[in-house]
Amino acid sequence: VSHYDDARSRVRPVDETARAAAVEHQMRLTKPARSLGAVEDLGARLAAIAGVMPPPIPTPAAVAVFAGDHGVHAQGVTPWPQEVTTQMVANFLSGGAAINVLARQIGASVVVVDVGVITTLEPSEHLIDRKVRRGTSDLTTGPAMSLDEAGRALDAGAEVAALLVAGGARCLVTGDMGIANTTPSAALIAALTGRPSAEVTGRGTGVDDATLAIKEGVVRAAAARCAGLEPLAVLAEVGGFEHAALAGFITGAAAARVPVLIDGVIAGAALLVAHRLQPDVVGYAIAGHRSVEPGATAVLADLGLEPVLDLGLRLGEGTGAILALQIVEAAARILSEMATFDSAGITEKR
Amino acid sequence: VSHYDDARSRVRPVDETARAAAVEHQMRLTKPARSLGAVEDLGARLAAIAGVMPPPIPTPAAVAVFAGDHGVHAQGVTPWPQEVTTQMVANFLSGGAAINVLARQIGASVVVVDVGVITTLEPSEHLIDRKVRRGTSDLTTGPAMSLDEAGRALDAGAEVAALLVAGGARCLVTGDMGIANTTPSAALIAALTGRPSAEVTGRGTGVDDATLAIKEGVVRAAAARCAGLEPLAVLAEVGGFEHAALAGFITGAAAARVPVLIDGVIAGAALLVAHRLQPDVVGYAIAGHRSVEPGATAVLADLGLEPVLDLGLRLGEGTGAILALQIVEAAARILSEMATFDSAGITEKR
Repeated sequence: VSHYDDARSRVRPVDETARAAAVEHQMRLTKPARSLGAVEDLGARLAAIAGVMPPPIPTPAAVAVFAGDHGVHAQGVTPWPQEVTTQMVANFLSGGAAINVLARQIGASVVVVDVGVITTLEPSEHLIDRKVRRGTSDLTTGPAMSLDEAGRALDAGAEVAALLVAGGARCLVTGDMGIANTTPSAALIAALTGRPSAEVTGRGTGVDDATLAIKEGVVRAAAARCAGLEPLAVLAEVGGFEHAALAGFITGAAAARVPVLIDGVIAGAALLVAHRLQPDVVGYAIAGHRSVEPGATAVLADLGLEPVLDLGLRLGEGTGAILALQIVEAAARILSEMATFDSAGITEKR
Repeated sequence: VSHYDDARSRVRPVDETARAAAVEHQMRLTKPARSLGAVEDLGARLAAIAGVMPPPIPTPAAVAVFAGDHGVHAQGVTPWPQEVTTQMVANFLSGGAAINVLARQIGASVVVVDVGVITTLEPSEHLIDRKVRRGTSDLTTGPAMSLDEAGRALDAGAEVAALLVAGGARCLVTGDMGIANTTPSAALIAALTGRPSAEVTGRGTGVDDATLAIKEGVVRAAAARCAGLEPLAVLAEVGGFEHAALAGFITGAAAARVPVLIDGVIAGAALLVAHRLQPDVVGYAIAGHRSVEPGATAVLADLGLEPVLDLGLRLGEGTGAILALQIVEAAARILSEMATFDSAGITEKR
């Protein structure tokens, strides 16, 4: 049985009754109505996700960093050598990367899932080997992957989501690593939203004008080739293994009725894929932040999501998602722990 | 000896050498340059505040909720009865208010400091009695407090900051409670920034148009009366006891070289007072969020501060400040714990 197909078939719309119960309860808490703004919206979403009011506390969280390489690297879309994907995986596994620091701070776990790194990785306690192939094909010269390979990466993501939830995670965090992966992200976003390539292609790690021009040309041609394709074919044509795996991971979270924190443009592109394959997954997705990458904003607008943070981040790894966790957790605790006007004996306004 | 005068005399400019060392170190960490955006700026500020690189981790945090009542309540500037200040203090002391929930979540302490509640409060473990008077005078008919009373409230704030730091707090959080206190906040902001009253007066807990018009008229007249007054006289003329105490608290944090998280418009007005009395305090202040209240944005613009969060909050109590703590702590941990390109053996970009 396919992990992904199983997860997709189990996704249900979020629970509007639980959401309404949360909104109603928020009006009775000892604060002026709506004075916690977006934190109240988040609390109501958490109730809708879990289907219960008050919603469960969304900790501990678990980060899955899906890692893959990209054939399009050969086109000169980034100044970073491809070996950095492998080196950064080693950094994640030894605990020195930004996502490790941020996860440790709040007691979240980090696993790395190899879905397509070009090198052979040494086995390690926090590494899950689901390598589909050693890097995608160059998306400028043909499909990045076959439909079968896309399916295997989707499966890996859905499987990891289920494993983490079975292990006690109450919130999943989307992480990614893959030198050149903002290029397939922009291609997926252009193809799936219909927006012009220039509007969704950004500087990624901070590329110069000449590299940006190459990148934008690659994205334009890739998106044009996707015209008329089904979402799964678009994913295979121009996506990366980590995008496919993240789409499966997001779907797995939705199937388990667990909130999934979306990081930047890579996770955003994956969320778009997951949404086009099963629209109800978006109800389970919380946008951790607004990345500097323009494609990330295009995804938020397309799906009607408001990000929790806007800190000018563009690192990836899941960093912008996990930084939102205190606020997401607070939204749930407000609903469980705050006194009401009645319980505290407080006079309401005239 | 005056706690406030002592603290003010000990405030030094933040350490630009430590800030530069942090910025330089951030360039060597295993991430694209500047990819952590505002989190990098925060980290550099924490180094400058402590005068050491890497900066100390800013936890545990301690929240002080300064509570007071306001004679201007008689003018009908809010639909909430004045007794709610006292009732909310009881809510803080029994752990049921929003600030209690948010502080417990992250292991921060909460103390309430009575600097001017109209009622007599029962002694309680987490209540500090520094009552200056039972509410300020009505600021529409004369000075809200005497200069001596302003000084006593400033002292209470500076004393509490020193007590909390001596007790182990590594980050202070500004909290407030006082029905009607957005009115004196707006008056202080209008008087100290010179901005029009209409631009800095907001709906507070959510007042209707008629109440807003009353409030704006009160603020306009109050600010006009402050023309030509020294900052301390402005504070006494139109401020509240909690504003004065918060100004002292912020100054106490700066004297101790501990970061102080600024909440919304009440703490913002207090920061403005503290700045006008000793400009170097602003280097120690981190704006937790951008409140919905327009006066809060006027303060941020006046002092050149960028808020960490923008969540549409307008509750007060310190809630918007404490919600930023994960991000502030992360900024420090990034500087202590992340691997460098050299230490992790990672190739830099071409």
